[in-house]
Amino acid sequence: MKQKTEERKKATIIVISGDFDKLFAAFTIATGAAASNMDVSMFFTFWGLRAIKKNMRTGNSLFGRMMGIIEGGDITKANPSKYGFLGLGRWMFGKMMKNKNVAGLVELRQMAIDLGVKMYSCETSKEVMEIEDKNLIDEVVDTVGVTSMIKHAQKSEFSYFI
Amino acid sequence: MKQKTEERKKATIIVISGDFDKLFAAFTIATGAAASNMDVSMFFTFWGLRAIKKNMRTGNSLFGRMMGIIEGGDITKANPSKYGFLGLGRWMFGKMMKNKNVAGLVELRQMAIDLGVKMYSCETSKEVMEIEDKNLIDEVVDTVGVTSMIKHAQKSEFSYFI
Amino acid sequence: MKQKTEERKKATIIVISGDFDKLFAAFTIATGAAASNMDVSMFFTFWGLRAIKKNMRTGNSLFGRMMGIIEGGDITKANPSKYGFLGLGRWMFGKMMKNKNVAGLVELRQMAIDLGVKMYSCETSKEVMEIEDKNLIDEVVDTVGVTSMIKHAQKSEFSYFI
Repeated sequence: MKQKTEERKKATIIVISGDFDKLFAAFTIATGAAASNMDVSMFFTFWGLRAIKKNMRTGNSLFGRMMGIIEGGDITKANPSKYGFLGLGRWMFGKMMKNKNVAGLVELRQMAIDLGVKMYSCETSKEVMEIEDKNLIDEVVDTVGVTSMIKHAQKSEFSYFI
Repeated sequence: MKQKTEERKKATIIVISGDFDKLFAAFTIATGAAASNMDVSMFFTFWGLRAIKKNMRTGNSLFGRMMGIIEGGDITKANPSKYGFLGLGRWMFGKMMKNKNVAGLVELRQMAIDLGVKMYSCETSKEVMEIEDKNLIDEVVDTVGVTSMIKHAQKSEFSYFI
Repeated sequence: MKQKTEERKKATIIVISGDFDKLFAAFTIATGAAASNMDVSMFFTFWGLRAIKKNMRTGNSLFGRMMGIIEGGDITKANPSKYGFLGLGRWMFGKMMKNKNVAGLVELRQMAIDLGVKMYSCETSKEVMEIEDKNLIDEVVDTVGVTSMIKHAQKSEFSYFI
């Protein structure tokens, strides 16, 4: 493909949610847009950081470690925004999606990576929640602040807050 | 009105939420935009499908029928995102809106339909949650995938994820 | 700065949430965009009204006063969308942000005001929830309906629903 990145239409997705259904929607839109030859950037903040975390403990201070425990686990531990109780909703959705041969979150995220979707982590969220680079999957492009995110959004055909 | 659809400004609204307040906002924006002569498309996915469901049981498999029960009912059963407990918030909001002569969800949706807002259901969500065409209100235009949604969003002046 | 308001790039943020993390994101985007010389408008609706309320009782009718009690307090009482129980999450996030010298919600909102971010309250929400002008901070520019909000969104480079 000779077309330069600068000339491709852009899409920006801010992901604040760590819920299964919201992440599923975010990655579906990201892969769909990338497959439509768009230049897609995702910015993960707050609970959304779960989507790009490795499955390891996070945090240094007392509060940071507490946050690391209550928000523990990686993308495979994301519960739906409803019926999250005891992981029931996650288990049920997992079953239903498997029955219909619908790709799970890990596959969707990998598809996004393979299609060139760029993933960024939010500077302030990382700092507050004491999540470090080593806690994030290697495919994360960079850690950025809000100004950088806004530059992407300004040039985008559409931009979502998920 | 002689102006062609292609020339009208477009708006796209993705509705993932089935919450009363979020649906109220979604239909308010949709009707407001349509009344401002915009060409509005709404895409209902996950819990948002509640907004375009008929009041009937859904699902075929064991899980599908379970989902049909716990997510039972149509738009009139939407609870607010807070104080949903025992339908209390829905009842209270209903009362408060009636007292102020504010249109309810069913009326707002009808207004959207009358103003030509186009409603689409999400293919994957329907499949996973085992919701069929016969379960949806007749005004739903089509069932579409993410690529179709993205085409709408690209051409839109604004696009929300609700 | 000689550049006219009409020529600056615009951003629109609809705030339906009263959650700590969502408000934090909303004001971070607003201040970031304003600092990037954008003309930013925020529309506060439903639970989002908390962000521009004074710390005083609201409501006249029985329901209105009940709503005023259960949704009591101003922006300092905003709980995160998770772990809100007994104000625990709010307390913990407050501690963690202070430890990292990250600005709190009140400071962020003040920064937004100082940077010229325009704040509007939603007409219908105010009416339904019985929140009056005297209950809102003085910096609120105006109370508007959806048509006015849509005009802003149409002219915006990006617009979020938070």
